Amino acid sequence: MTQLLPAVVDEIVARALHEDAPWGDLTCAALVPPSATSTAELTAREGGTFAGGPAVEAAFRLTGASIAVDLLVAEGEAFEAGTVLARVEGPAAGVLQAERIALNFAQRLCGIATATAAYVAAVAGTGARVVDTRKTTPGLRALERHAVRAGGGHNHRYSLSDAVMVKDNHLAVLLASGADLTQTLRAVRDRIPHTTSVEVEVDRIEQIEPVLAAGVDVIMLDNFTLDQLREGVALIDGRAIVEASGNVRLETVAAIAATGVDVISVGALTHSIRSLDLGLDIEVR
Amino acid sequence: MTQLLPAVVDEIVARALHEDAPWGDLTCAALVPPSATSTAELTAREGGTFAGGPAVEAAFRLTGASIAVDLLVAEGEAFEAGTVLARVEGPAAGVLQAERIALNFAQRLCGIATATAAYVAAVAGTGARVVDTRKTTPGLRALERHAVRAGGGHNHRYSLSDAVMVKDNHLAVLLASGADLTQTLRAVRDRIPHTTSVEVEVDRIEQIEPVLAAGVDVIMLDNFTLDQLREGVALIDGRAIVEASGNVRLETVAAIAATGVDVISVGALTHSIRSLDLGLDIEVR
Amino acid sequence: MTQLLPAVVDEIVARALHEDAPWGDLTCAALVPPSATSTAELTAREGGTFAGGPAVEAAFRLTGASIAVDLLVAEGEAFEAGTVLARVEGPAAGVLQAERIALNFAQRLCGIATATAAYVAAVAGTGARVVDTRKTTPGLRALERHAVRAGGGHNHRYSLSDAVMVKDNHLAVLLASGADLTQTLRAVRDRIPHTTSVEVEVDRIEQIEPVLAAGVDVIMLDNFTLDQLREGVALIDGRAIVEASGNVRLETVAAIAATGVDVISVGALTHSIRSLDLGLDIEVR
Amino acid sequence: MTQLLPAVVDEIVARALHEDAPWGDLTCAALVPPSATSTAELTAREGGTFAGGPAVEAAFRLTGASIAVDLLVAEGEAFEAGTVLARVEGPAAGVLQAERIALNFAQRLCGIATATAAYVAAVAGTGARVVDTRKTTPGLRALERHAVRAGGGHNHRYSLSDAVMVKDNHLAVLLASGADLTQTLRAVRDRIPHTTSVEVEVDRIEQIEPVLAAGVDVIMLDNFTLDQLREGVALIDGRAIVEASGNVRLETVAAIAATGVDVISVGALTHSIRSLDLGLDIEVR
Amino acid sequence: MTQLLPAVVDEIVARALHEDAPWGDLTCAALVPPSATSTAELTAREGGTFAGGPAVEAAFRLTGASIAVDLLVAEGEAFEAGTVLARVEGPAAGVLQAERIALNFAQRLCGIATATAAYVAAVAGTGARVVDTRKTTPGLRALERHAVRAGGGHNHRYSLSDAVMVKDNHLAVLLASGADLTQTLRAVRDRIPHTTSVEVEVDRIEQIEPVLAAGVDVIMLDNFTLDQLREGVALIDGRAIVEASGNVRLETVAAIAATGVDVISVGALTHSIRSLDLGLDIEVR
Amino acid sequence: MTQLLPAVVDEIVARALHEDAPWGDLTCAALVPPSATSTAELTAREGGTFAGGPAVEAAFRLTGASIAVDLLVAEGEAFEAGTVLARVEGPAAGVLQAERIALNFAQRLCGIATATAAYVAAVAGTGARVVDTRKTTPGLRALERHAVRAGGGHNHRYSLSDAVMVKDNHLAVLLASGADLTQTLRAVRDRIPHTTSVEVEVDRIEQIEPVLAAGVDVIMLDNFTLDQLREGVALIDGRAIVEASGNVRLETVAAIAATGVDVISVGALTHSIRSLDLGLDIEVR
Repeated sequence: MTQLLPAVVDEIVARALHEDAPWGDLTCAALVPPSATSTAELTAREGGTFAGGPAVEAAFRLTGASIAVDLLVAEGEAFEAGTVLARVEGPAAGVLQAERIALNFAQRLCGIATATAAYVAAVAGTGARVVDTRKTTPGLRALERHAVRAGGGHNHRYSLSDAVMVKDNHLAVLLASGADLTQTLRAVRDRIPHTTSVEVEVDRIEQIEPVLAAGVDVIMLDNFTLDQLREGVALIDGRAIVEASGNVRLETVAAIAATGVDVISVGALTHSIRSLDLGLDIEVR
Repeated sequence: MTQLLPAVVDEIVARALHEDAPWGDLTCAALVPPSATSTAELTAREGGTFAGGPAVEAAFRLTGASIAVDLLVAEGEAFEAGTVLARVEGPAAGVLQAERIALNFAQRLCGIATATAAYVAAVAGTGARVVDTRKTTPGLRALERHAVRAGGGHNHRYSLSDAVMVKDNHLAVLLASGADLTQTLRAVRDRIPHTTSVEVEVDRIEQIEPVLAAGVDVIMLDNFTLDQLREGVALIDGRAIVEASGNVRLETVAAIAATGVDVISVGALTHSIRSLDLGLDIEVR
Repeated sequence: MTQLLPAVVDEIVARALHEDAPWGDLTCAALVPPSATSTAELTAREGGTFAGGPAVEAAFRLTGASIAVDLLVAEGEAFEAGTVLARVEGPAAGVLQAERIALNFAQRLCGIATATAAYVAAVAGTGARVVDTRKTTPGLRALERHAVRAGGGHNHRYSLSDAVMVKDNHLAVLLASGADLTQTLRAVRDRIPHTTSVEVEVDRIEQIEPVLAAGVDVIMLDNFTLDQLREGVALIDGRAIVEASGNVRLETVAAIAATGVDVISVGALTHSIRSLDLGLDIEVR
Repeated sequence: MTQLLPAVVDEIVARALHEDAPWGDLTCAALVPPSATSTAELTAREGGTFAGGPAVEAAFRLTGASIAVDLLVAEGEAFEAGTVLARVEGPAAGVLQAERIALNFAQRLCGIATATAAYVAAVAGTGARVVDTRKTTPGLRALERHAVRAGGGHNHRYSLSDAVMVKDNHLAVLLASGADLTQTLRAVRDRIPHTTSVEVEVDRIEQIEPVLAAGVDVIMLDNFTLDQLREGVALIDGRAIVEASGNVRLETVAAIAATGVDVISVGALTHSIRSLDLGLDIEVR
Repeated sequence: MTQLLPAVVDEIVARALHEDAPWGDLTCAALVPPSATSTAELTAREGGTFAGGPAVEAAFRLTGASIAVDLLVAEGEAFEAGTVLARVEGPAAGVLQAERIALNFAQRLCGIATATAAYVAAVAGTGARVVDTRKTTPGLRALERHAVRAGGGHNHRYSLSDAVMVKDNHLAVLLASGADLTQTLRAVRDRIPHTTSVEVEVDRIEQIEPVLAAGVDVIMLDNFTLDQLREGVALIDGRAIVEASGNVRLETVAAIAATGVDVISVGALTHSIRSLDLGLDIEVR
Repeated sequence: MTQLLPAVVDEIVARALHEDAPWGDLTCAALVPPSATSTAELTAREGGTFAGGPAVEAAFRLTGASIAVDLLVAEGEAFEAGTVLARVEGPAAGVLQAERIALNFAQRLCGIATATAAYVAAVAGTGARVVDTRKTTPGLRALERHAVRAGGGHNHRYSLSDAVMVKDNHLAVLLASGADLTQTLRAVRDRIPHTTSVEVEVDRIEQIEPVLAAGVDVIMLDNFTLDQLREGVALIDGRAIVEASGNVRLETVAAIAATGVDVISVGALTHSIRSLDLGLDIEVR
């Protein structure tokens, strides 16, 4: 979880602050005396799993005002409604200006961590891990991936650059050119770093053997029924990591995990975010 | 809707492409012959309202490959499941590389436009407009605001810099210093551009008169019941624009509109996004 | 005045420092011993109104040397010739390197604040406010607008994005398409945020009524004579804010204000800058 | 004059366009039909010398609309009031959006070129050249220096990095450390590139000999009277380039040139800009 | 090899062009008539393997002049002394300005490709691949990695973010905390993406078994003698990919390959670059 | 040497860190406890001349961890094998993450400084200075030029923007247009700043007189034999600075210096870098 680079967080948060106040906060400039200070509490209006502390901290720090942020809950820690997640203290104008941006980050990232934690809890006791996908919000992948880890989930490959993943559309291109699947996949190994894994998506049981014959590391069973998943797991039999994918929901994830797959990828962790209900309660002094 | 600046779209999409392939697409580089070309169709797996064409176009263009994108549905146009939204043609490697990023933008923005259209339909026939909030995804405000407009909604102030909005936390600061509410709000006018509107959030009926006395442009009735909203509208009686806010849902928005408010702000349009189900069907030649 | 964001100031000043020393200060590197320290005083060679302290502070800080800047005059404060505006202390090489950049900012911004203060003084006792325009130096709008505020002036809309302003060229486009002015302006309201004001520029008295009929917020009387201004003010009679514009000079501004207009916009505040005469007196130790 | 890099112009103009429309042109989006096209003429309301064509071209091009810009006057060409400087044709919304930014650049740069041309004309027939200083607008040095060249002037060193210039404050540091002036200046040569010139500013006749003894390339006579300038020129007698500096005005520049100095540096060319009066006349079709 | 993203090449080349001409090419501006055009040939003064065509193309294109670049040799193609690698045609000033930058890229990248090709040739007939390291030039990794591929080599992991590599210093940290090596390495798997490989560096034969017991993908034998390498290969016996590392030279690489290792990493491919001798011969018309 | 701007170093180093860990250090995140701290020593495995301390310091600082860097050897100081160049202390994860980047900078820059020092030593006792060229690594010129200075060498012009240098290709363009060489070179003076030097490259003795007649500052004798160099020096006879250029090697530089030339430019100082062997020895606590 220390994998989240401070410079990356700062760049993303600075962009958000600038987007939200290209030439300052008119309201605070007109209303709030520079000398006014305030204490604020980031409070959970509902329970969940925490993520996004570094973004909250950066939002207040990057206003340029001297605001102290005290994070009271660790990344990945579960909390109940009413919990004070962080305490903020400093010039009132700065606190008010950063409020919405801090909340925008915290609500989304806690939403992702909380959703992930629910999926992870649902598969507890099985050997399956819950992983994210590349269906992240453009520009926020580093933060959203961090939130998935905070929720107890795992990351899939970060990008097109760190693992080979042969999907249906790639296969369509290959087969259109009359290439032999097994041989083609074997040839991939010769062109990529020796540290790079190869994953192949299959849509039908029949595709598994030729893919395995090529010596791939991971086979993704896409949109398989539970019966098909069980059949796939048995057929692969430890010769590759097995990933289940396709329209996974919280209600179905436990049954999918029970089929014996190793990995379940869930696009909904990041592509359809429900922000968690958090608020910033301000006390003026 | 022409308000979406090409340079802004390009910057956001370029960032997303780089995030998704810091040093290229290993899979395409290893598998797809440079000479392979393909045609692809961006297809709706469910009905909705379209938004995000410029981002889709940019995603393919900015790969650097010569990919032609033909948008078949206009921004803001409703479509049914099965509709082909855009046709893409060019080098297969470029099309495959941009696929996920194009979809990430299109699914989210169509999701926002579609949700907005549902709210707008629900208030049809009343005088109320549906507006967004500052609860947008960090870094994507320009695109998400555009999607709200595409869905028939309206935008609220874009940022802290283009309208004064006095919220509960500001009032807390003011009242803590013993200031008179009406006089303070009047003084705000003296410090802001003459083209800047002043909106004040009130939590109780009793706050309305002193706020009106200050000559504000908009009064936001926050978390009022339907009865309270009606009472507020009657009391304000055209002396200011009336905005209803707070936990508005699709099931409740019609009733809120029926109270006679002018504006209903809906954070859920952007803070909790359900991506629309779209796919890219590739045909290789 | 706290509206000037530290990050914005730093970005502008860092760009200026880099422009002025892409690979360092050859003179100081060759001549000035690293151990030499100095004290310097930013001194006014003529009287004026102060603005630009944050830029001065940033110019010395962003050299990377540990230079202390003590601002002795507040933003917006008037000073006489001979006044020490700031005291600077630190490594001589850093002080000498930043000198010109600090002066470039301070002289221009004090020039704007001083000019603004003269216009503001000239209209004292009338109800008119002096405002700037979009005729700012490219890239420096945030700082120049700040200087106008420091001089006691007000800002007009910041950009094309925060108020509607229908000018002669827009009207030309509209009328060429045969549109009805009043109806068209009314329709504008339906397409913009409810927090956005509408201002319309008129060139002739006859245009005022159809514009007022559309319910606009501000009417700009462009290049009106004093008599025409008085006639316009009487006609509008409080139904909209009245702005006078067009070739306003220090010698004419009082008479314009006396016509009863609410706002007088003065392009010269920023489009034709006379830098104030300031110097940095260095004492070596 | 080809020295102005296209990428540099584009970066500066793009920044200005973004500053002026962070999220689009509300007025055009609400009023101007996308199909409306227009022709516009950049017209001189007063005579002068042209500069800034590349910035004008970029302002329209970088809106993203397909606007054709036809520059009718060359950089450095003199024009009379009423001259059409450029013709612009394209979508009305794009033309209107870029109008102010194009004018902001053209008016300032033509202002600088015109002022420079006046100084250059005043010294015609003498051997003196008129040069600019580092008192340029932060962020616009490349453009302003180009405008000086367009006006027939010459540039001084571009920055702290391309020539050594020992000014009074440097000398103060050196003398405070008890260094010998001649020896110190000689030592400078050993530490700088062999292609770098050394200029030294002197305040009194007595400083000239020790400076010359060090073999410097340029001696700046700062704030010398005409008599002192003549004395300095005679004393230096071709052993170094002679630069006159300090409060040079259009009324005094000819007399200064007549003293026989080689170079006259004029801060006012860029530190106190009077924008030239240009307008954009739009015709809709 | 299509893995090199156009946007990445452009960003790197634009930075180099700006670094080399912050305010233009004084020589061309003063000497070369804008109308002069020229043809130039990028010619090999010695034989080698080509890489860097996209950077050469970008260097001429990004000057903003309309220069046509015709690449005559493909990435990865071998060439003899005297070969014309590319032909360039356009305005002479632009060609001359970009010349040095184009050469700087081409000479270095061809140098890397040529050196790589020599190592690859030396191991021909063995099963070993030659790979690069993270000892690349800061800021140029994407281009240098591409040159290694062009030379027939393979890439190692791109960065700290796409494979786990446990080196001596990590082991020092782990063992200092008293951790069990095998168990610790096993636990790593639980914390990283399922598509991420784990490589461990060992310094002694004795470390191999506990590392293998943890199920790692790659074992790096660091600074092993040839005998030790053979022993290591025999011991590992296909249970992991074997990488040899440490002070590999062209004279020793064949013998290392003959030990049966799978991968040989060579820091010298990029950390000590000998630029290939290329020249640009210009013909003016 | 103080000429190296902190902001420039930080920008270059930050780019390198991001390139090396776009989304964090997977190994440290999975293996290294956040509480583990370590001390590390940057140690010389061979003797040389030190350069790059500011980059080393920045590499550790910009990880965001609180790492103290104590530089024990000054820029430009010679050291023997075994010398501890710097001591580093802080969180083990941060130290390990920055290790490679710190080494990449230090090894290259020390390599350049060390090579430069060898050339400088070889010409000791002659009047010749050793200078670099524009054959620097794209993006690293500021740092590499600094390393040359640290090694006792001098810099040539930094870029195309700070001195005129007429090379063979320029002459080809001029002569093709039938221009007179002497007159053309004289005219250059009229178009460039008075602080800018003019250097001309000649390939044959016969070119020297016409070039001298134009009053240039520096004449570069390109690829002259030792005899030709001596002849050239005698002919020029102090009327211009004499620079020898072309395939200078460590074995030949002393003889070249003995011919009496003033400046010897050596492309190899930066275009073919041998990294110095440095290591980071980590001790965990």
